[in-house]
Amino acid sequence: MHSYRQLFDFTREVFLHMGCPPDDAKLATEVLLEADLRGVDSHGVARLSGYVRLWEAGRINPKPNVRIVHETPSTATVDGDAGLGLVIAPRAMDIAIAKAEKVGTGWVSVKNSNHFGIAGYHAMEALSSDMIGIAMTNASPLVAPTFSTDRMLGTNPIAVAIPTKNQPAFVADFATASAANGKLEILQRKEKKAPIGWIQTKEGDRSTNANELKEGGALLPLGSDRTHGSHKGYALAAIVDIFSAVLSGANYGPWVPPFVSFLPVADNLPGEGIGHFLGAMRIDAFRPADEFKAHMDNWIGAFRNAKVKKGEKAVLIPGDPEREMTEKRLKKGIPLLPPVERDLEELAKRFGIQL
Amino acid sequence: MHSYRQLFDFTREVFLHMGCPPDDAKLATEVLLEADLRGVDSHGVARLSGYVRLWEAGRINPKPNVRIVHETPSTATVDGDAGLGLVIAPRAMDIAIAKAEKVGTGWVSVKNSNHFGIAGYHAMEALSSDMIGIAMTNASPLVAPTFSTDRMLGTNPIAVAIPTKNQPAFVADFATASAANGKLEILQRKEKKAPIGWIQTKEGDRSTNANELKEGGALLPLGSDRTHGSHKGYALAAIVDIFSAVLSGANYGPWVPPFVSFLPVADNLPGEGIGHFLGAMRIDAFRPADEFKAHMDNWIGAFRNAKVKKGEKAVLIPGDPEREMTEKRLKKGIPLLPPVERDLEELAKRFGIQL
Repeated sequence: MHSYRQLFDFTREVFLHMGCPPDDAKLATEVLLEADLRGVDSHGVARLSGYVRLWEAGRINPKPNVRIVHETPSTATVDGDAGLGLVIAPRAMDIAIAKAEKVGTGWVSVKNSNHFGIAGYHAMEALSSDMIGIAMTNASPLVAPTFSTDRMLGTNPIAVAIPTKNQPAFVADFATASAANGKLEILQRKEKKAPIGWIQTKEGDRSTNANELKEGGALLPLGSDRTHGSHKGYALAAIVDIFSAVLSGANYGPWVPPFVSFLPVADNLPGEGIGHFLGAMRIDAFRPADEFKAHMDNWIGAFRNAKVKKGEKAVLIPGDPEREMTEKRLKKGIPLLPPVERDLEELAKRFGIQL
Repeated sequence: MHSYRQLFDFTREVFLHMGCPPDDAKLATEVLLEADLRGVDSHGVARLSGYVRLWEAGRINPKPNVRIVHETPSTATVDGDAGLGLVIAPRAMDIAIAKAEKVGTGWVSVKNSNHFGIAGYHAMEALSSDMIGIAMTNASPLVAPTFSTDRMLGTNPIAVAIPTKNQPAFVADFATASAANGKLEILQRKEKKAPIGWIQTKEGDRSTNANELKEGGALLPLGSDRTHGSHKGYALAAIVDIFSAVLSGANYGPWVPPFVSFLPVADNLPGEGIGHFLGAMRIDAFRPADEFKAHMDNWIGAFRNAKVKKGEKAVLIPGDPEREMTEKRLKKGIPLLPPVERDLEELAKRFGIQL
């Protein structure tokens, strides 16, 4: 168990040692640790050593020149210059917000980036400006489209953050696969089986083996199978891929470079790095913000008061579990699994810093 | 079996008899029949008598004054004046496209509307301008959020149409429920059982009864249950509801007025009519359209060539089945189920027109 403060100082030191400018190191840390606070443990400090290895492999530029390469009043295409997605995505979101201030909405497609942490962080950036925030990214191919055995898509998440009045903000943030890889990693550590509908064998058969990915299997799109709408999850993942990468000029589909440095990057890539898509919509570009926010509270109230199925506690609003986890972990600290703890200790030794 | 032409002439006559101006009657017919062409039989002429009954109940204004009530350079809020969604949505999409021409993207939230046919029609409107088209709508509450037994959301579809070069366009169009009500209606007519994961009883238990909705049950969000990601389908349906109705000032969640005229409209509605959300993004607001379209062809080619699971024929691209159905039905005609046929015959008698 570590306090948020401890992990923050440590992580920032690591980014500084990678050569990130101080402001970037701080920002990257804030974005990365938002995952640990919100309980998305697979996307937080657990990935820090992965970023370091990518940097060692020359695949992360610690001092990127993040710049707009194309724009209109409501759009921009951003070249991330192979920097940390943790730094590039907030810059791109700032651009989206600035454009929304002027013309109502702003939409930014990003190429030549790396993993950007949790999508929810970036979407939530718009809330304080009374805007709806949208964030998506493509990712290493692990998901097979419906009817296929090939891994063609990432778990390509979508996040949407919507302002409210007195209720906490509505914050949806979810992978477009039936279960993200992080959930399988948890089962692997506990040596448990996966439910049917999360993963298939390399032949495309149903499987409960949480290690199936290592044996050539694939994750399944949201919906799990054709009968239950996996073609919809596949379409959603495809839309995220196209908005993030085909619009921007990043790599897409099976060509997205893997996050792990030990896997080779494909030859003849169709684009640069991985891609993100960020959007901001000013509420008062549609109706007065106060009116909207009062109705959002009414919407949320109605759903909170919906009848609950026997055996369940409450109908949740998107963002509820993550907000409760954040409050808890800010108070009580962030638990790390032994392998993550060991990873951080190695980084501490290597850079001569304290955990 | 009827030819497209026969059904077109008949449907237009019905809309003319409802008092629609000639251009509106033609447009409404084109939008409605797109569903029959694409094989979404539940959303086409099968609904014509429903529109007539809503009009008889005074809930459809055949001569609406569709107007912008609020706007910025990239957004508009449209009041549909209780007209046919079949006519309002194309007008709103025209506004989105015109705004995209000027500032890169256009986004229109619509209130005071009625059902707009299939979402795909409206999204595809953007294709000929080299734009990505987006369309969503809320609908009568039939879907229970995860953990609940109350019907709080419609099957709230999302459509995204993306231009290509030589490949047919990418057209995703799907309900955010695990299965749309139309699929259950087909099972009802055939007196077949529904798969587990489509519907629950009024107590929230698993059910295979295709008539469960009539007994107080509810449809399930995409993902079917919490283990398989139904909270994601619930979040998606919620986002569609909020963009379509809370942004515009339409009714949302459990207050969306039912499509069927025999169900009462709730008292103290929080908004007007049902809501839609339409968007258009100019491709060349991000990168040259030719470049993008060549990469889309490459994306589609890669997915078409992905390895196919044993027993399946091919990996499909969103829009493939609907395009093939359109080609077939334009040539061979559109089959109607006996109850739909009877419905149309009654309309023919009533208005003194020929089927």
